[in-house]
Amino acid sequence: MAKNLQDYIDILNKLDFKNMYEGDFFLTWEKTPDEIKAVWTVADALRCLREQNISTRVFDSGLGISLFRDNSTRTRFSFSSACNLLGLAVQDLDEKKSQVAHGETVRETATMISFMADVIGIRDDMYIGKGNAYMHTVVDSVTQAFEDGELEQKPTLVNLQCDIDHPTQALADSLHMIHEFGGLENLKGKKIAMSWAYSPSYGKPLSVPQGIIGICSRMGMDVVLAHPEGYEVMGDVVDVAKKQAAESGGSFTITNDMKEAFKDADIVYPKSWAPFKAMEIRTDLYGKGDQAGIDALEKELLKQNAEHMDWVVDEDLMKITKNGLDTLYMHPLPADIQGISCEHGEVTADVFDRHRDEMYKEASNKPYIIAAMIFLAKFADPVAILKRLEAEGKQRLMK
Amino acid sequence: MAKNLQDYIDILNKLDFKNMYEGDFFLTWEKTPDEIKAVWTVADALRCLREQNISTRVFDSGLGISLFRDNSTRTRFSFSSACNLLGLAVQDLDEKKSQVAHGETVRETATMISFMADVIGIRDDMYIGKGNAYMHTVVDSVTQAFEDGELEQKPTLVNLQCDIDHPTQALADSLHMIHEFGGLENLKGKKIAMSWAYSPSYGKPLSVPQGIIGICSRMGMDVVLAHPEGYEVMGDVVDVAKKQAAESGGSFTITNDMKEAFKDADIVYPKSWAPFKAMEIRTDLYGKGDQAGIDALEKELLKQNAEHMDWVVDEDLMKITKNGLDTLYMHPLPADIQGISCEHGEVTADVFDRHRDEMYKEASNKPYIIAAMIFLAKFADPVAILKRLEAEGKQRLMK
Amino acid sequence: MAKNLQDYIDILNKLDFKNMYEGDFFLTWEKTPDEIKAVWTVADALRCLREQNISTRVFDSGLGISLFRDNSTRTRFSFSSACNLLGLAVQDLDEKKSQVAHGETVRETATMISFMADVIGIRDDMYIGKGNAYMHTVVDSVTQAFEDGELEQKPTLVNLQCDIDHPTQALADSLHMIHEFGGLENLKGKKIAMSWAYSPSYGKPLSVPQGIIGICSRMGMDVVLAHPEGYEVMGDVVDVAKKQAAESGGSFTITNDMKEAFKDADIVYPKSWAPFKAMEIRTDLYGKGDQAGIDALEKELLKQNAEHMDWVVDEDLMKITKNGLDTLYMHPLPADIQGISCEHGEVTADVFDRHRDEMYKEASNKPYIIAAMIFLAKFADPVAILKRLEAEGKQRLMK
Repeated sequence: MAKNLQDYIDILNKLDFKNMYEGDFFLTWEKTPDEIKAVWTVADALRCLREQNISTRVFDSGLGISLFRDNSTRTRFSFSSACNLLGLAVQDLDEKKSQVAHGETVRETATMISFMADVIGIRDDMYIGKGNAYMHTVVDSVTQAFEDGELEQKPTLVNLQCDIDHPTQALADSLHMIHEFGGLENLKGKKIAMSWAYSPSYGKPLSVPQGIIGICSRMGMDVVLAHPEGYEVMGDVVDVAKKQAAESGGSFTITNDMKEAFKDADIVYPKSWAPFKAMEIRTDLYGKGDQAGIDALEKELLKQNAEHMDWVVDEDLMKITKNGLDTLYMHPLPADIQGISCEHGEVTADVFDRHRDEMYKEASNKPYIIAAMIFLAKFADPVAILKRLEAEGKQRLMK
Repeated sequence: MAKNLQDYIDILNKLDFKNMYEGDFFLTWEKTPDEIKAVWTVADALRCLREQNISTRVFDSGLGISLFRDNSTRTRFSFSSACNLLGLAVQDLDEKKSQVAHGETVRETATMISFMADVIGIRDDMYIGKGNAYMHTVVDSVTQAFEDGELEQKPTLVNLQCDIDHPTQALADSLHMIHEFGGLENLKGKKIAMSWAYSPSYGKPLSVPQGIIGICSRMGMDVVLAHPEGYEVMGDVVDVAKKQAAESGGSFTITNDMKEAFKDADIVYPKSWAPFKAMEIRTDLYGKGDQAGIDALEKELLKQNAEHMDWVVDEDLMKITKNGLDTLYMHPLPADIQGISCEHGEVTADVFDRHRDEMYKEASNKPYIIAAMIFLAKFADPVAILKRLEAEGKQRLMK
Repeated sequence: MAKNLQDYIDILNKLDFKNMYEGDFFLTWEKTPDEIKAVWTVADALRCLREQNISTRVFDSGLGISLFRDNSTRTRFSFSSACNLLGLAVQDLDEKKSQVAHGETVRETATMISFMADVIGIRDDMYIGKGNAYMHTVVDSVTQAFEDGELEQKPTLVNLQCDIDHPTQALADSLHMIHEFGGLENLKGKKIAMSWAYSPSYGKPLSVPQGIIGICSRMGMDVVLAHPEGYEVMGDVVDVAKKQAAESGGSFTITNDMKEAFKDADIVYPKSWAPFKAMEIRTDLYGKGDQAGIDALEKELLKQNAEHMDWVVDEDLMKITKNGLDTLYMHPLPADIQGISCEHGEVTADVFDRHRDEMYKEASNKPYIIAAMIFLAKFADPVAILKRLEAEGKQRLMK
């Protein structure tokens, strides 16, 4: 972060990311390594400008549309912040306040809200097989509407969390690792434990662990996915992680032993999630409107969770990691902190408190990652725009 | 749309719309023909600038207040888009989140929200005799507050749909006709069928058919309003349409025969609505809080609707129009599409799909129409401002 | 208001308010007299610029976060207006739409929403001992996050109403007095009656009367607080008012006789509020979730209120004030107007109507007061910025 804009420009000049122009962001593993690096680098570059009080308002007007199908604070604020940083006003599509349920198609709604939309950010992570598919339908719709001349611009999609991946989280997290380890090259051969942890609630999204193994497996890291038996994640993503690990010179293994995962780990990422299979069943039950079935499933899952209360991160567990209590601990927040927010939870308060600042820094990357995704989709020559912003040097806050 | 800004300026220079300055927009028939033409022309001019990536941000700061008394997606987004296009931030007045029910007067609320408001957009179409009247009370209030020195600017009202008219829809629709027929002059003598169509829901607003007969009857068109017996619209608007048709050299007729209306029509606009008389009764029942009465009325109206399931637009019906399947088909959206969003509805899927693109283009006019209404109310010399925007040529999206 | 910007700058140049830079605004009595004067003066200066159509957009981008724990129209719009005036976009933290209840700490939420926040406005006035304390926790959190490098700026807090004070109201009100009396110096020795008045509802916040005695007692005024026995306000604030009155050369007295308070008063401020003691009990009952207790308390308080229906301002009462019917009458709005919004209320319609315009002007100060608080917290040299804004003379609305 002590770098100059020129340092970031030098990096960008060596990367090929021209296909991101007028594109969308669904899944990290659909992007090339250069494209992923471009997102990290533009995120840091935008932050570098903002820290110098230089405005990065590249839009004089325009809308960022947000569509959240689940409650959200931090993702909502991250998206708002990113839009604002670039000059876009945010308009929420609140499906409850709208006529969307009225029987109209996704294509129609997507077109109707996009006449002046430059960005559409969607969070839809609840139902397996649905969220990512929905995003594709939206993108197909606005692409067609743009080609048919109904829209004057094709809004770019930012996946703010789907059933498969959580790319803004995964890239914010991996950028945090890069910062903490002083560069991507230093992460090669480092061991990360992406581990399940006990939570008294159930049904937490799979997109975080899937996103983490999806990104870390291509960074040459030794990725260990740990969870109790029965808490398997989506098989397709496991396949992606295996393939990428082989290509990147890292490794990908799965264990049902939390200690094995933590042993000598350079980074630990313990977090609760729901079994993929159970989420498939739940999606099916919701589709049928089978409330009794949903209630029964919830009971069963909570009971299953309760069998794994020992999957908690405490100081003893941290001590077996590479740097003991100081090993990089990550979490997308909010965490279930034992004794604070719940009786039994993912992590003990002493471990959490020791790493609180780092996690807040980790989170602070997200607005910049989102802004970088938008930036790379909107400009044929992002480097030229970064240079122009610095040269013009418009103050963000008047001085 | 292939025109230059200068073409629009040439048109504006021949029109007299000076009374729109510091005015409001309630009903299209309260405006002169020149004023209506000015709205269409400024809408096209703003679009022309945006298509050239020229910013039309005439406000450096300022608020657009939106007040929706009914759920809304497209109108909400159109208003947001229009405000954003001109540089205004949108602040919703959500009456549920507010203290408005607290016994205060409309005058007080209107003043309290308007200290920095440049525009107030209101949608209030549910209750006969109420919506338009409410808008007038708001305008009277802020006008007085401005004259008394409590407000530093008089916000301009944009009627986003009332019980009488839906001017932003009617002007977006008529602008679409102008674009499709290559000019206003080409619409003279053309036949439009504004027709009721069957819907499985009830209580759809009258403001769309009323708005369409209100605008088309002054364009020299042969306007045919078709509906089953018992589905009459507001008598006052029928009188307006008759009078205007006589003045414009067009005609206005009413029929209870859908086929008669469609026969040789150049444009068809089939859409469900509720009988005006029933809506009057409903308004009365709501006023009394008579829920049993409302429920009984709903049953009765759905039964009445069900007697007219044959009022559906299918290919056979389209074939008797002037250009057969290709005749301009219009709808404000969302439509009740038979077999898609309902078992029986306003239109069959084949007809709807053939005209989908056109309807999306029709809808794309609305943000520009709203922006034009604001623009004409805010500038003593709108032509000079358009010229200045083009001359300054500030990029909307940095290049 | 007929002044030039230079007049305000001349005043500011004589004041010491350097400690407001990077500060927060909790309670008026925590600020020095010079700091209070600076808020009034900057508010007038910003208004002066806006009236000349000069943009005061000092932020090119940035967020103002609003957090309302109670329904609100005018405070919400005042905050939005102030943010917009300075160039900030508003993002609401709607705790219902968020994951805040999820067990996370205030510190965490405050940090997570503040990555690009320049301002946080909070209204939290419902629970005694909680609102102001909560604001301090938020400020402590973001201050720490800024110092730890997690935030790139420390957002400034604006107290939009707490359990102790309502500083934006108190400063807007006192600025109104200054305008009406032609200067702060003319208020010395003037008598203000801050009086309880009957309302058919209960539980109205104490922050208004507390705010008014808190500010007027330091302006050299003769402050009389009047209420029925049992309607005492917070003792700590009474102590503050006594101490300040002694220092400022004014006086502070409490009476249980409305007429005694109104007798020869130069300004009257009649308004209902709930007894402090009862609000303490209510807070306790809410804490315990004792709904039966809350219901019983409500009944009791309404009964207690009903014993004081004679605490109403009518023309007879106004006639005993210094200037009779024309004596300055103030209210934060909305008022309980007898015969209009309720059968028995705080004020009769004839008195209210005579003073309606003044109250709307009183209210119009609030957005500027909020903007001034932000302005003084954000600039090391606010005078230089005001000069720069005038010199650049950027039009708010293009001309």
